[in-house]
Amino acid sequence: MIEKTIHIDHGSGGLATKKLIEEVFLKRLSNKRLERLEDSAILDISSNQLAFTTDSFVVDPIFFTGGDIGSLSIHGTVNDLAMQGARPIALSLGLILEEGLLIDELERVAQSIKDALSEAKVEVVTADTKVVQRGKADRIFINTSGVGIPYEPRLILSSEKVEEGDVIIVSGSIGDHGATILLERSGFNMDVSIGSDSCPLNGLVETIIKGVGEDFNRLKVFRDPTRGGLATVLNEIAQASNCQMVLFEDEIPIKTEVRGVCEILGLDPLYLANEGKMVVICEESIKEKVLSSMHSHPYGRDAKIIGKVKGVQKEDSPIVTLKTTIGGERIVSILSGQPLPRIC
Amino acid sequence: MIEKTIHIDHGSGGLATKKLIEEVFLKRLSNKRLERLEDSAILDISSNQLAFTTDSFVVDPIFFTGGDIGSLSIHGTVNDLAMQGARPIALSLGLILEEGLLIDELERVAQSIKDALSEAKVEVVTADTKVVQRGKADRIFINTSGVGIPYEPRLILSSEKVEEGDVIIVSGSIGDHGATILLERSGFNMDVSIGSDSCPLNGLVETIIKGVGEDFNRLKVFRDPTRGGLATVLNEIAQASNCQMVLFEDEIPIKTEVRGVCEILGLDPLYLANEGKMVVICEESIKEKVLSSMHSHPYGRDAKIIGKVKGVQKEDSPIVTLKTTIGGERIVSILSGQPLPRIC
Repeated sequence: MIEKTIHIDHGSGGLATKKLIEEVFLKRLSNKRLERLEDSAILDISSNQLAFTTDSFVVDPIFFTGGDIGSLSIHGTVNDLAMQGARPIALSLGLILEEGLLIDELERVAQSIKDALSEAKVEVVTADTKVVQRGKADRIFINTSGVGIPYEPRLILSSEKVEEGDVIIVSGSIGDHGATILLERSGFNMDVSIGSDSCPLNGLVETIIKGVGEDFNRLKVFRDPTRGGLATVLNEIAQASNCQMVLFEDEIPIKTEVRGVCEILGLDPLYLANEGKMVVICEESIKEKVLSSMHSHPYGRDAKIIGKVKGVQKEDSPIVTLKTTIGGERIVSILSGQPLPRIC
Repeated sequence: MIEKTIHIDHGSGGLATKKLIEEVFLKRLSNKRLERLEDSAILDISSNQLAFTTDSFVVDPIFFTGGDIGSLSIHGTVNDLAMQGARPIALSLGLILEEGLLIDELERVAQSIKDALSEAKVEVVTADTKVVQRGKADRIFINTSGVGIPYEPRLILSSEKVEEGDVIIVSGSIGDHGATILLERSGFNMDVSIGSDSCPLNGLVETIIKGVGEDFNRLKVFRDPTRGGLATVLNEIAQASNCQMVLFEDEIPIKTEVRGVCEILGLDPLYLANEGKMVVICEESIKEKVLSSMHSHPYGRDAKIIGKVKGVQKEDSPIVTLKTTIGGERIVSILSGQPLPRIC
């Protein structure tokens, strides 16, 4: 590109838009469906079930340790499909660019999208680019939507399946993404090595489903604790299943560095966003199978049982409680009045 | 809602987000798939072909005569699916809200989304809401993606099918949407009654496909001339088909009011966006069938043949030419260097 920055004409739908798309995106993301540049892509599918999801990304800063808004936008949508037990088959990419954005930065984001797509083994098949005036957006916002088909069509994943005795597993350490973004935004110059955990979880999901074989319907829920963190996701599941989630503080994997950042910034890792972790709730009887499958995959190596599901008696509420290291017990409520904006 | 404006906490993923979604959106858009509030929706489908599309909407102003950003975002994506001959089966909705947006305005947009969905007979099944700080977006941006299945699975629509002798039909007057937005933005206080043509075209597409019966493969291309207008769309088809598009100026329907606005603002209606019009290119042999089907539908009442396709001889280029009223001929090039930002 001769131009160095995005200008308004890049969003006109004419020649400038075409050139930008060809030189920045098609060069990297080219495939036979996207190249047609028609208004929608036609996919061949062989399934009578389809998973469909959408997510917009407004993370600030757009580049951070361990990723950027480009990779995040692919991982986020791939993971939303994976959490429904679906293999991603195609993604869409909707860009809103602020006039003045450096083309160099857009190229870095496009490259990072390309790399994330290859790792997740999926393509962008339809896309759209809009440009708004300087001061009317914040450099770049990305929407990705995705369609997927089930790894195992007979598997039903739903919070409503969760019941007393089920175990709660997390695939690895929590809070890495949130702590990274908040630290970078804080301006504190701390010498800690933390980075976002942003990664695609479809491979891990496939490994778990294959690993449990014919016991697949003993799997209850997959969820990725993104915005709102582990606490929010477990509260949502508690309410939907009308059960209590009992967590063991000692068992929840949190990196020392993340714990340190949380102490300094006054944050609770249970509420911090994760972009490469998943929660699995399953019957106790298959916990070993699930854990060993997870441990066999790079993104599930540190998987641990962190809690169990308890039924709700007459006077109980569907809440999340934490059994603390010092022997106490506290209620972990849903995130409220703790604005952690633009974490994804 | 007790609050009157969007605040940052509405994007946190916690209680405030939940409340906003329930009170503004679920109240209006509720359906069994969206209500689950899981990360992706599961659809039952009975087709081995799927159309998939995405579009972001950043129109300024967000409310305009004949529609608003809400209805536009539904029509735009429904129409992108329809242009591939697909019946929309489900949409996604991704909102980026600026802190300070009035809840009242968001409610108006949500209502308008609801009404547009009912007319197009489709549901939003998955959604996402993000909030950015004041000054980091422009009130509201909306992404809608959509999936659809073909009305006629054997019908292939592609610019590559276009050849010498085909006719070019437009479903009604052009430039209404673009002229409306640009007039309202100009600040001119002109006493003209123009409004956006924004509407869903899936019903019209279904009517055409049914109307031609077993001749369906004599249909070549459906396209909606949105951003970049009729001129840009026909140039794209000319290039993809390696043909010339010859237009008859006298036959192109343009409302007197739109022509007036264009003269005053110095615009060419051929480049103005349309949000409720379509171009059909088909074999000459079925033109009467296509026209009479279109005339039978409210959104195709004013359909007209506006041009024909000419092959490209050795020294010709795949261009669009306009035979003018006074007997001349001029080349209609692709939009270039005429920035008309945020028209959709």
